[in-house]
Amino acid sequence: MKAEILATGDEIRSGALVDSNSAFISERLEEIGIEVVRHTCVGDDLSLLVSTLREIGDRVDMAVVTGGLGPTTDDLTAEAAAGAAGVELTLSQTAFENVESFFKKFNRPMTDSNRKQALLPDGSKLMYNPVGTAPGFSLKIEKCLFFFLPGVPYEMKRMLAEHVIPEMLSLQGDAAMHSRVKTITTFGLPESLAGEKVAGVEAAFPGIKLGLRANFPQIQVKLYGREINLAMLDQRMAEAGQWALERLGRNVISENGERMEGVVGRLLLERSASIGLAESCTGGLLANWLTNVAGSSAYFFFSGVTYSNKAKIDVLGVKPETLERHGAVHEETAREMAEGARRLAGSTYGLSTSGIAGPDGGTEDKPVGTVCVGYAGPDRSFGRRLYFPFGKRLMNKKIFCMAALDILRKELLGIGG
Amino acid sequence: MKAEILATGDEIRSGALVDSNSAFISERLEEIGIEVVRHTCVGDDLSLLVSTLREIGDRVDMAVVTGGLGPTTDDLTAEAAAGAAGVELTLSQTAFENVESFFKKFNRPMTDSNRKQALLPDGSKLMYNPVGTAPGFSLKIEKCLFFFLPGVPYEMKRMLAEHVIPEMLSLQGDAAMHSRVKTITTFGLPESLAGEKVAGVEAAFPGIKLGLRANFPQIQVKLYGREINLAMLDQRMAEAGQWALERLGRNVISENGERMEGVVGRLLLERSASIGLAESCTGGLLANWLTNVAGSSAYFFFSGVTYSNKAKIDVLGVKPETLERHGAVHEETAREMAEGARRLAGSTYGLSTSGIAGPDGGTEDKPVGTVCVGYAGPDRSFGRRLYFPFGKRLMNKKIFCMAALDILRKELLGIGG
Repeated sequence: MKAEILATGDEIRSGALVDSNSAFISERLEEIGIEVVRHTCVGDDLSLLVSTLREIGDRVDMAVVTGGLGPTTDDLTAEAAAGAAGVELTLSQTAFENVESFFKKFNRPMTDSNRKQALLPDGSKLMYNPVGTAPGFSLKIEKCLFFFLPGVPYEMKRMLAEHVIPEMLSLQGDAAMHSRVKTITTFGLPESLAGEKVAGVEAAFPGIKLGLRANFPQIQVKLYGREINLAMLDQRMAEAGQWALERLGRNVISENGERMEGVVGRLLLERSASIGLAESCTGGLLANWLTNVAGSSAYFFFSGVTYSNKAKIDVLGVKPETLERHGAVHEETAREMAEGARRLAGSTYGLSTSGIAGPDGGTEDKPVGTVCVGYAGPDRSFGRRLYFPFGKRLMNKKIFCMAALDILRKELLGIGG
Repeated sequence: MKAEILATGDEIRSGALVDSNSAFISERLEEIGIEVVRHTCVGDDLSLLVSTLREIGDRVDMAVVTGGLGPTTDDLTAEAAAGAAGVELTLSQTAFENVESFFKKFNRPMTDSNRKQALLPDGSKLMYNPVGTAPGFSLKIEKCLFFFLPGVPYEMKRMLAEHVIPEMLSLQGDAAMHSRVKTITTFGLPESLAGEKVAGVEAAFPGIKLGLRANFPQIQVKLYGREINLAMLDQRMAEAGQWALERLGRNVISENGERMEGVVGRLLLERSASIGLAESCTGGLLANWLTNVAGSSAYFFFSGVTYSNKAKIDVLGVKPETLERHGAVHEETAREMAEGARRLAGSTYGLSTSGIAGPDGGTEDKPVGTVCVGYAGPDRSFGRRLYFPFGKRLMNKKIFCMAALDILRKELLGIGG
């Protein structure tokens, strides 16, 4: 089956807002074997909306539309859908009660304009919105079944998963292809090299498609499988996954999409271990990542973000002689920072970064992109110097953090170099 | 004049990549008075590309197309453009030399497939690409002038600015409208309330359009002006801007799009002042924001990310009695943390956060979303308790940081409460 996606709204049309919904929906639809052939975006213009809906209805079997279901006068989607289908708008009692109960739940007053949100095209089927006031609905226009969803991403995602995908799957019936995606997250290989290592997977496992996705500085290797027979599919995916994992080796961070900070947090928890940080060039980003994980207070105790040498000495106990002899960006300084963080935090491990994120501060010897990572554990401590050729401050901060976490990850797994 | 935008490529069509190019191009075109009426995306499918180009050529005066100009077999844009215009592809000597010189400059070997990039539709006008191998071109199809650009964002942006925008301006001639956008960044007002405060600007200043844009947790109030007479436009924009600034009052962070951390950094620099931080619930995000600003080492000295009570006591010198009596999330604890950060860093100011970001850890008395901000300056120190009803960990971390910086900003400006 073929599908199209329509994003509506002046904010997206005029470029004030980037449309990330259409990519998200395409990916979900492709995963269940529906081919997305076109995305369109038009603004809040009734006659253009009506004609666009009719065009799409004429071309494909299914469509997902986002936006324009809100309470204000420039929310025109329901009216346009009714116009395109040649039907009237009628107040849906169920939709009205859903909106009403939403306002009660959050103790907010309901206005007249919210009543408008319960006006749906005749013949449409209501889709309940558990997280917002805008109800969704489905409606046949021309030969195509349209699903109308709110434009707010988290509302759209929830309704796509709970209503649209299940209905699309049941419409496909016996012809429904099962599909599976395996995401292998890697760090430390450039995209081109990661691609080369696993390029043979499509030839070795017919029916498996390979995709690479850069989520800087992590690279995701994705294996897509599609098959009517589910057992066969699962077996082939498992074999192809194993094949790819062997080729990617210790660059593999996770097999389930989990990010580095989640993996490191889990490894610490499993070992009843804890971490203290000392950050110079990463400026708090490393601590921020680790503490983005809910429950991280169980293993994250402390980070000393020590930009100044004074703070490195006073807070972390780095020796003034070390700074004098080697400077702030050096393996030994980083090692002493990690030791200091471990001691101060009273944690099992200490991890530190000291480097040059740029744009200024680089020298011939230590150009922008140089970082020294310090590690301190129960048995040993060391500093290691790395260089990344990206040149941009925010990219450098990210890759420095990722490199530091990767050193800790390998130590925790006993695969450190 | 009306325009459309076409993004091409299977990566975008299938959702593997979010199309941010179309929003960027729309915004630039709208700024010079060209109305963008529709965005479309289709994949690497020759016949669909040809028919889509013809449809667009039939509807509007100008179009910008991105993607599909690379050297590989699924780069079909030049072939599709020739097909839609009913002309042949011919090797452009100039394009070939441009590609050749690019490879020479970077000392990379040129392959046969790169030769394909110099094949352009007859009658097209070459656009030089200074930062990549894919040449762009313009070509009339039906009634519409198409500009074909690479899909790589920085190549597209460079060529849009250097070739497309100047040519579009000259095509508009005397009818060219000047346009101006003023961005007022605010914090502390919900979007609806910010909107209400400035809703009257369109009536008070005819020709000015109002736009609101949530960039959580900041709200941008945008004023758009468009006018043939530039002097008149500038005057009206200045008056409307002043009008809006007065209504938004001390919630205004900047008038030039600058983010909170940039504004606070500038205020510190101007005063030759410096800052030390103590972060609990914000987990390093506050330091990360401040150190994202290049040159921040001039005023940012230290942050102690103290998740554990032990670190609050040992590192920051918070009194154990204070923690015992009030707990970690309290005005007095926050105040002592700020004092400790200021003392440790040897900085002019100290700023701290201690709160409950969630999802767990909330109590009836201190629910998730509660934060205490501590401030310490040369003359006084205080703690302040705030509550935000968002409930999500990452949103809470952001708004807690913004609230802390806003307290410092108001103290620096002498407009604190």
